[in-house]
Amino acid sequence: MQEAYKASNTEKALDIISLYDLEEEARKLIPASHFGYISSGSGDEWTLRENTRAFDNYQIIPRYLAGVKDPDTTTELLGSKVDIPIFVPPMAAHGLAHITAELGTAKGAADAGALFTAQTLSNSSLDEIAKISNGPKWFQIYFTKDMGINRELIHRAKAMGATAIVFTVDLEWNGNREADKRNKFVFPNSLPFPNIPNAPVGATLKEISSIFKRDLDFKDLEFLAKESGLPIIVKGIQSAENAKECVDYGASAIQVSNHGGRQLDTVPAAITSLPGIVEAVGSKIPVYLDGGIRRGVHVFKALALGAKAVAIGRPILYGLALGGALGVTSVLNLLKDELKLSMKLAGCAAIKDIEKKFISLI
Amino acid sequence: MQEAYKASNTEKALDIISLYDLEEEARKLIPASHFGYISSGSGDEWTLRENTRAFDNYQIIPRYLAGVKDPDTTTELLGSKVDIPIFVPPMAAHGLAHITAELGTAKGAADAGALFTAQTLSNSSLDEIAKISNGPKWFQIYFTKDMGINRELIHRAKAMGATAIVFTVDLEWNGNREADKRNKFVFPNSLPFPNIPNAPVGATLKEISSIFKRDLDFKDLEFLAKESGLPIIVKGIQSAENAKECVDYGASAIQVSNHGGRQLDTVPAAITSLPGIVEAVGSKIPVYLDGGIRRGVHVFKALALGAKAVAIGRPILYGLALGGALGVTSVLNLLKDELKLSMKLAGCAAIKDIEKKFISLI
Amino acid sequence: MQEAYKASNTEKALDIISLYDLEEEARKLIPASHFGYISSGSGDEWTLRENTRAFDNYQIIPRYLAGVKDPDTTTELLGSKVDIPIFVPPMAAHGLAHITAELGTAKGAADAGALFTAQTLSNSSLDEIAKISNGPKWFQIYFTKDMGINRELIHRAKAMGATAIVFTVDLEWNGNREADKRNKFVFPNSLPFPNIPNAPVGATLKEISSIFKRDLDFKDLEFLAKESGLPIIVKGIQSAENAKECVDYGASAIQVSNHGGRQLDTVPAAITSLPGIVEAVGSKIPVYLDGGIRRGVHVFKALALGAKAVAIGRPILYGLALGGALGVTSVLNLLKDELKLSMKLAGCAAIKDIEKKFISLI
Amino acid sequence: MQEAYKASNTEKALDIISLYDLEEEARKLIPASHFGYISSGSGDEWTLRENTRAFDNYQIIPRYLAGVKDPDTTTELLGSKVDIPIFVPPMAAHGLAHITAELGTAKGAADAGALFTAQTLSNSSLDEIAKISNGPKWFQIYFTKDMGINRELIHRAKAMGATAIVFTVDLEWNGNREADKRNKFVFPNSLPFPNIPNAPVGATLKEISSIFKRDLDFKDLEFLAKESGLPIIVKGIQSAENAKECVDYGASAIQVSNHGGRQLDTVPAAITSLPGIVEAVGSKIPVYLDGGIRRGVHVFKALALGAKAVAIGRPILYGLALGGALGVTSVLNLLKDELKLSMKLAGCAAIKDIEKKFISLI
Repeated sequence: MQEAYKASNTEKALDIISLYDLEEEARKLIPASHFGYISSGSGDEWTLRENTRAFDNYQIIPRYLAGVKDPDTTTELLGSKVDIPIFVPPMAAHGLAHITAELGTAKGAADAGALFTAQTLSNSSLDEIAKISNGPKWFQIYFTKDMGINRELIHRAKAMGATAIVFTVDLEWNGNREADKRNKFVFPNSLPFPNIPNAPVGATLKEISSIFKRDLDFKDLEFLAKESGLPIIVKGIQSAENAKECVDYGASAIQVSNHGGRQLDTVPAAITSLPGIVEAVGSKIPVYLDGGIRRGVHVFKALALGAKAVAIGRPILYGLALGGALGVTSVLNLLKDELKLSMKLAGCAAIKDIEKKFISLI
Repeated sequence: MQEAYKASNTEKALDIISLYDLEEEARKLIPASHFGYISSGSGDEWTLRENTRAFDNYQIIPRYLAGVKDPDTTTELLGSKVDIPIFVPPMAAHGLAHITAELGTAKGAADAGALFTAQTLSNSSLDEIAKISNGPKWFQIYFTKDMGINRELIHRAKAMGATAIVFTVDLEWNGNREADKRNKFVFPNSLPFPNIPNAPVGATLKEISSIFKRDLDFKDLEFLAKESGLPIIVKGIQSAENAKECVDYGASAIQVSNHGGRQLDTVPAAITSLPGIVEAVGSKIPVYLDGGIRRGVHVFKALALGAKAVAIGRPILYGLALGGALGVTSVLNLLKDELKLSMKLAGCAAIKDIEKKFISLI
Repeated sequence: MQEAYKASNTEKALDIISLYDLEEEARKLIPASHFGYISSGSGDEWTLRENTRAFDNYQIIPRYLAGVKDPDTTTELLGSKVDIPIFVPPMAAHGLAHITAELGTAKGAADAGALFTAQTLSNSSLDEIAKISNGPKWFQIYFTKDMGINRELIHRAKAMGATAIVFTVDLEWNGNREADKRNKFVFPNSLPFPNIPNAPVGATLKEISSIFKRDLDFKDLEFLAKESGLPIIVKGIQSAENAKECVDYGASAIQVSNHGGRQLDTVPAAITSLPGIVEAVGSKIPVYLDGGIRRGVHVFKALALGAKAVAIGRPILYGLALGGALGVTSVLNLLKDELKLSMKLAGCAAIKDIEKKFISLI
Repeated sequence: MQEAYKASNTEKALDIISLYDLEEEARKLIPASHFGYISSGSGDEWTLRENTRAFDNYQIIPRYLAGVKDPDTTTELLGSKVDIPIFVPPMAAHGLAHITAELGTAKGAADAGALFTAQTLSNSSLDEIAKISNGPKWFQIYFTKDMGINRELIHRAKAMGATAIVFTVDLEWNGNREADKRNKFVFPNSLPFPNIPNAPVGATLKEISSIFKRDLDFKDLEFLAKESGLPIIVKGIQSAENAKECVDYGASAIQVSNHGGRQLDTVPAAITSLPGIVEAVGSKIPVYLDGGIRRGVHVFKALALGAKAVAIGRPILYGLALGGALGVTSVLNLLKDELKLSMKLAGCAAIKDIEKKFISLI
């Protein structure tokens, strides 16, 4: 029988120089198969690498003598006020990184003034998350085959105080995660999935995702919007036409994402897909982005190309592993500092000032 | 005197994570000069590498919420029903990889529901191939200088049950295979070429190919079509104009191919040549492709760019070496799984749904 | 308490084969944290590397049989005659490299017939610089928050004999210098900043720059021009629109620069920004450039693309460290020789002959 | 005093698999500073590398079923019949490679049916070259400052049987050969330059080239044509406009060349410069090319892009060092075989059939 998994329980603020350093620190701390689950991508990891590399296709063109003082990074996300245009996206099983699991992440995000996304595969219950964080929160639903469970998830999300539902559409099936195959990764059976009734325990990702609905369509989007009465963010969109369809069926926002390079390999980098989607639907609903962001200049470029905010995934879990809630706050503060410095050095006083004119193609 | 060559006789299904792993496993098993013959390309191997790399010039753009269930990979090849749009192309001397030679490959392909191409330089006789496999089969002819032999080959191919003849036009002469020169590669004299009357034994490729006709022209294509009464697939075409000429002279299909980077180095990758040829003749006859395919996403991209099916060569021989017929089936099943997952994650329910709209240029 | 820093006191001419060699020699000589301060860039150092790499985007097209004899490299910079179109840009704290600090650099530049830029953060006083060098000199001002100090700096610059003021607009805040963070770099407290009244001692760059004005605008440019009565060169401009604004507010020249890749990372290489700025304002005022120049062919390309002169930074400090004033002269002479050879081999008799027709895009 | 230099005296045919191998073999045999002189380029050696790399920008598109038999590689160069469109360009001091010096090269070239270019800085006298080789020969002149010497050189060239004069225009000054500086290379004083009256002995390249005329102009071209009564090939041209001027002043051919990357670094690869020059003057006079050719496919591509023949330099000297005249013949035969195979596999029966339609841009 599998022993109970003992994740890190360190609680400390982190003195981070760069998020690339952080990944190396986390690699030393987190058991290899768990680190593999968190860090790896699918197939040849082309998209995983490209997500970050493609930011180099865009250069920032600074404008000086603009009389800009200390820039303001506050903004709002579908009505929620936040201190930074950087939020925590849905990620499964934070318990792999830290014993406080999503409670640590939710608290760390709130303390940094950032929005947190809880989700179906969280190891912490939505009730507990609500108790530990007054900050803005969304909930990501993975549609299961059981409509009763789906209704129950929406109900719990609203009880938690979610102000929007994230509808992730690219994980009906798992990507080809070769690292997990090599590592024979299973979720430790000591890590519960308390938000799913009768969730499998000690299971592979494949076993877990077998409970998901696999023929999602636009009616599911309509159902979600109607059932929840909340704005729906469709996450995983990479095509401009697809984004327009989402608008037609009632989406309140699009999150451009390739699931961190974990689903279909050799899709474009998220930043590459962004401009076409912004052009298609950006005048109607906000467009967000996740994928490859490791630097303040990456955040700046995504905003300049039309994203209203961005999400950063893996580094949040590395911060959680290395410092608990304080580590999560440290990660978000570092990115905030880098973003703010980018704004100072480019000549932008506020988030809304970060426009396309600051970008040039390589 | 040369000792009788003892190729692998292992028979087992393979648990393959990636075809790149498989190549490394095979490299350990197959004697270096034989592995060199199978794996290497010509000249600087630019085309060999480019065949695979060039797939990265194309990205897949997924479309979600399309209500796609478990995709269907069946299709037909010139009238033959197959389970997958992936077939086994003509390759010489499977006896280098496994004692069952082409019998193993033919059986493994049939068991995977895939079409198999027997050929002039097979180590197994067409009779035996016919006995071991009920699956769909083609025969590739290398035109010899002796018209009698050519007629005999067509006769035997029809007796085997070939439903089409593959006319490979790019091997009148051998490419500059430097690995073979370095390894002083000769075909072991214990490996027969039973389908060619009076074939050289224990010979170099150069000696063997000296029996081939070296001024092939379109009349040979007409002869083949008339003599066999079967559809002719012209293999080795890389130019749109050349493809049109083939149609004019009666070709029933084109197989875009650079002979796996083994003939003229620095020709374009097969996937690079494909779109122009599809545009030129794709509305009249089916276009197939081989060259560099190692991933399900490669198959997906080739089909999206207009190929009706693709062939995969070297990995078939690696699977044969490592597991006999069962290994061949494992290789084809892995690619089938990867293709199916690509279809799921891109949003395609059937082979015919894989269209150009799913592709974006890098 | 920090010990007094003992920088190199070597005085010798250098036999340099290439400036890349020089950097390696200097790395061995200068303490690591000081070398890090001098040599490193910000963030991922993308712009630092790109500054040099981007010169490879442009090829020189020579023209022969033009009857060119020994070329003439003399030119003038805002009215000052110089032997070479290569000048020494403002750099802080030459005392890190050599005990003679800016006195060595100023003398070395003058001996090579090159213009020298003194600056606010010099370790030598402007008085002493005036005494040691009769050569042409500019002064770079960092605007402090105290207008009295700013006026005093202008006064001292004029007293030194500066014929122009360089207004650096991209350093209100420091870039993300990770090397300095890793090395915990502080300016040695034995190195004075004698040109700033009450300058911090033994301080970090962050502490020092905290005295700078952080909301520079075009009125500051107007103030500078009026107060000094001297031509103003605006340094740090990377946008064509920004350059036009500078002209509107009275700039006499533009120095295209990204601060040697030390401020905002992932801005374009200086040579990439140059042509658009020359097109925008080059017919009205001269445009200079610094960033990545290590070769005579780099100087040639920048001139051919419209720069009237270029500045070279770090190698000057390496020459200073390795040979004092003589080392600085050696560096400038090497570049002069390389530039002259480029002119000979391209077919240009004089600086004004170096035109766009000698350049082709890769 | 310098000892007499003893170069290789080996005489044997070489079994070469690739010219890249040959370079490695030669590196082991030839003393480092001499090998450096032969093999290195100028500056950062960007152009040296690019000369070969840039061939990969062009792909060959084969055309099959054309009924091509054994191709014919014969052609003519300004009226001289040759077996291959590959000639030996002017190179200085073959005595560094082999005791037979230019006699070995001239004999080896003649035995391969290739044209040989003798030159001003040959270690063998033109008289002896005439005696050892009946093959087609050109002579390259470096214009010295002494018109009497220039006339004498033309006279000796005609006496040798040169059918054309190669006028190299890009070596008034030496490029920045850093390898020679590092190796403190001097020509061994035991190596004579018998074709130049009072040539310096035991000298650096710089000392030797100091005797050259340094303000060559089009009148020198006219002088050469008139004085010699022979066709003049202008070598070193890289600009289409420059090529047109040469035609205007009486050139009979252009040899596109960047002196093997040895003169001005960061000029384009020769193959990159070729098409524009062919477009400008190719309908009037033949255009030749040297630079980076190491493969038969390189020869094929240069011919397809409009060159009437190509020259190959360094590998000739490596062959000479490793096998004397026999080695030179081996090198040329290898390239002939590779070219012929390229013609077979692309579908070309004769040199004139190698056209632009066989090339596609990457």
